[in-house]
Amino acid sequence: MDTSIQIFDTTLRDGTQGEKVAFSAEDKLRIAQQLDAFGIDYIEGGWPGSNPRDMEFFELASEATFNHAKIVAFGSTCRAGSAPEDDRNLNLLVEADTPAVAIFGKSWLLHVEKALQISAEENLGIIRDSIRFLKEHGKEVIYDAEHFFDGYKANPEYTLATIEAAASAGADTIALCDTNGGTLPHEVAEIVMDVQEKIDTPIGIHAHNDCELGVANAIVAVQNGCVHVQGTVNGYGERCGNTNLCSLIPNLQLKQDFRCIPDENMEQLTALSRFVSEVANLNPDIRQPYVGRSAFAHKGGIHVSAVMKNEETYEHIRPHAVGNQRRVLVSDLSGKSNINYKAEQLGLELDQYGEHAKEIVQKLKQLENKGYQFEAAEGSFELLVKKMTGDWEEFFTLEGFRIIVEKNVSGSCRTEASLRLKVNDQLEHCAAEGNGPVHALDKALRKALHKFYPEINDMHLNDYKVRVLNEKDGTGADVRVLIDSAEHGKSWGTVGVSHNIIDASWQALTDSFSYYLARQQKEVHQKEAI
Amino acid sequence: MDTSIQIFDTTLRDGTQGEKVAFSAEDKLRIAQQLDAFGIDYIEGGWPGSNPRDMEFFELASEATFNHAKIVAFGSTCRAGSAPEDDRNLNLLVEADTPAVAIFGKSWLLHVEKALQISAEENLGIIRDSIRFLKEHGKEVIYDAEHFFDGYKANPEYTLATIEAAASAGADTIALCDTNGGTLPHEVAEIVMDVQEKIDTPIGIHAHNDCELGVANAIVAVQNGCVHVQGTVNGYGERCGNTNLCSLIPNLQLKQDFRCIPDENMEQLTALSRFVSEVANLNPDIRQPYVGRSAFAHKGGIHVSAVMKNEETYEHIRPHAVGNQRRVLVSDLSGKSNINYKAEQLGLELDQYGEHAKEIVQKLKQLENKGYQFEAAEGSFELLVKKMTGDWEEFFTLEGFRIIVEKNVSGSCRTEASLRLKVNDQLEHCAAEGNGPVHALDKALRKALHKFYPEINDMHLNDYKVRVLNEKDGTGADVRVLIDSAEHGKSWGTVGVSHNIIDASWQALTDSFSYYLARQQKEVHQKEAI
Repeated sequence: MDTSIQIFDTTLRDGTQGEKVAFSAEDKLRIAQQLDAFGIDYIEGGWPGSNPRDMEFFELASEATFNHAKIVAFGSTCRAGSAPEDDRNLNLLVEADTPAVAIFGKSWLLHVEKALQISAEENLGIIRDSIRFLKEHGKEVIYDAEHFFDGYKANPEYTLATIEAAASAGADTIALCDTNGGTLPHEVAEIVMDVQEKIDTPIGIHAHNDCELGVANAIVAVQNGCVHVQGTVNGYGERCGNTNLCSLIPNLQLKQDFRCIPDENMEQLTALSRFVSEVANLNPDIRQPYVGRSAFAHKGGIHVSAVMKNEETYEHIRPHAVGNQRRVLVSDLSGKSNINYKAEQLGLELDQYGEHAKEIVQKLKQLENKGYQFEAAEGSFELLVKKMTGDWEEFFTLEGFRIIVEKNVSGSCRTEASLRLKVNDQLEHCAAEGNGPVHALDKALRKALHKFYPEINDMHLNDYKVRVLNEKDGTGADVRVLIDSAEHGKSWGTVGVSHNIIDASWQALTDSFSYYLARQQKEVHQKEAI
Repeated sequence: MDTSIQIFDTTLRDGTQGEKVAFSAEDKLRIAQQLDAFGIDYIEGGWPGSNPRDMEFFELASEATFNHAKIVAFGSTCRAGSAPEDDRNLNLLVEADTPAVAIFGKSWLLHVEKALQISAEENLGIIRDSIRFLKEHGKEVIYDAEHFFDGYKANPEYTLATIEAAASAGADTIALCDTNGGTLPHEVAEIVMDVQEKIDTPIGIHAHNDCELGVANAIVAVQNGCVHVQGTVNGYGERCGNTNLCSLIPNLQLKQDFRCIPDENMEQLTALSRFVSEVANLNPDIRQPYVGRSAFAHKGGIHVSAVMKNEETYEHIRPHAVGNQRRVLVSDLSGKSNINYKAEQLGLELDQYGEHAKEIVQKLKQLENKGYQFEAAEGSFELLVKKMTGDWEEFFTLEGFRIIVEKNVSGSCRTEASLRLKVNDQLEHCAAEGNGPVHALDKALRKALHKFYPEINDMHLNDYKVRVLNEKDGTGADVRVLIDSAEHGKSWGTVGVSHNIIDASWQALTDSFSYYLARQQKEVHQKEAI
């Protein structure tokens, strides 16, 4: 039995139908190149007939090199009453200049009669003619049988007749679509099994996640004979999304005998997922299976102490197999084992008797009550531990700052920060302009510190996140600011909480600089000691 | 065949082991009361032996009234070598004063020998003795067989022996736990079927979502004989979370012949989901099946025009069945049908010839490129349409504002806004202090407008969200501010984008006031016309 499964990615087409998902043509090209490198077989790039951006993508793609993947243009069967050669949409598909095309047609008799308002037989003709036309133009044709499962449940004979028409016209693959995402796995199993018996053409599955079963339905389809799976990175897609390839691929390949991508690429899965969410400018879902930041994060005290002994106890696969990593979270649910693990990981020394760990757990609880979170702010956590264990000297102290934001009648906005800072007993008084208040403050702080610590030029802020706590209080609410900073590929997070967004930003900003300076100092000491 | 399924909610216990999920004892009580009203059978409140907050919850719960649900205290079997009556943990379970308790014990021989370091037989004794002790104290006992599926795959005989021990000691329900979340649906089906044949005690399933199969595994378990399902609201829980009850319950009850909650409560599902995410202070997942904001949101032009004709075309259930609603999104993927639908919904008049709709689609595309999003900012969308169709007069114009934020050496922070605004040709010059810059601006704006439009006292800001776009630019990035405002239960969203967070906030803030004033004016006109 051949266990290799074709993976058909539609992140760039169905994915962009998800709310808040949008890509430029260049974004699409960057993603397509990553998908190709990862070993995806088919990359559906968009619908050339529907918008100019997608046309632009196919132009860019036709000039780019893909080592493995086939680029696919998407469209529909031709309009009722027009011959394929006169159909604008089909002609644009041909012109998109891709080796493969995917076209969808109607499977559900109700829709044929109500929506298209044509006869059952006419619809079969449209399917046949459209596919034949594309085959005559040398295309590999994937036929998407829209609403296949709903159609089958209503009228199996007619629905089967539509894909028999597609098969007889030479479709290379027939993808059974659960367009509304409402079908359950046992139904998918039965229907796929029936289709398998009746059609010789290779069949595929296109599932949606409206019942939280997008991955399960694809698995059961494969187990019952589908050899082609359509899905998206991170499960992006219309409504609740599509089959999530980031879960499907490891489920098929690490846990069953199916083969989707080259084994050696599996460790790139987490990077692929995060790359796509970054280009989409969406926050990654921390709970996402396999690739999420929390997927191997242990919070409960018992889990932590067990995982420290034997990872198999609470991990279903090795995190590294998909390029992810284990994390131990510190929170008020933490036992002392979390604090000890974390301290060891960070190279911090705690007393042997557990007194420090106990005090730190209490302090964390207090701060988390106020809205602080240290799970993504390891820099601030480390400073907290150092301050509590007496292992800390301030690099600078604030004497005061003032920020002025002015908007005038012309609409332009000007921001200035002035800052008085004590560094090594010297008072530094600096001012800077910025795009916004935090940017101005960041620049002023750098000016004040630069003379004493020129190494701050090597660090930069990577990411700045604002989260309104008690949101119901509107603009008077508390805010939490998380800052991610980096220097030569090493990154760290810091946190601040306040009524005032500027003050919260100041806390996170100064923690970031302090953490960095302390680390630099330590490295210098270590070098001197050698 | 009895098709009723016991629903066991562990949002308050396993849910809080998820990253970023934390509840106070009072939060837990509020959630428990909502779960009870919704018709959940069992509510696991926490682990009285593990932290003082959970103890406090059980005290609060014992004084509260629950009409339907049984409150459950969670803990483990007694420690090796100690008699149940001397075991602190078991005694705290008894003292928690709940009708039911859930205790977990070891099923996997490897763990018994490696982690507990006791003999196979000794572990069986611990399970039996712990359950007997709790039964003697009159408790209903749910036995959680930890790592059941992994244990079964390694050594079915011993794993079955552990639950036979639990059954013989009088456990009322035995929950088979896929603790690491790594089991696939076909494995769950086979193993549950085998257990079913061998054990008379009612069995349940406790699944995790590490393979994105938490819901699928629970469904297949129920289809093969489990009568009790453990899960959490929104799927919160350790690592990737637990079986999501918000998907499981409608999957079982709306699509199959199982019964979980009273039919008439199903319409409260969306409200329950959002309530819990609000108390957890987490943003709801917009793509969440059934209850997410996007679950019935249509973006692609074709979908929109089809849904407008016949909702069955792209919706697997009626959104109202779970208390959710259909949405049509406006974006640069929108066809003119989205704009027309939206305009109709908002009561806006467009020209018959589609010229307005075309211009609006183009403008949207331009603004979305800059980072605006109108999907959650219907207020700003409406203003945009009115301005573009010439149906708009400004209520006020900005002459300028200045914001000063000062932090002094004592650490306290002071914010003041001064504002010059032209309202009805009069120049208003106002100043106000606030918690932060946007709060101060909001207050100053109200002062300036109040004399002309006293009705602004009735509206308030509900929610304030900041999203850093191009995040990689750190504190110099563009930001998008979304504001939700409300007046007597009606709410609307507005948006602003700028380099400067204050300027973006100003845009969203003034859109909110303008939208509100325009709506008030229209209502007055309508009343006068009668």
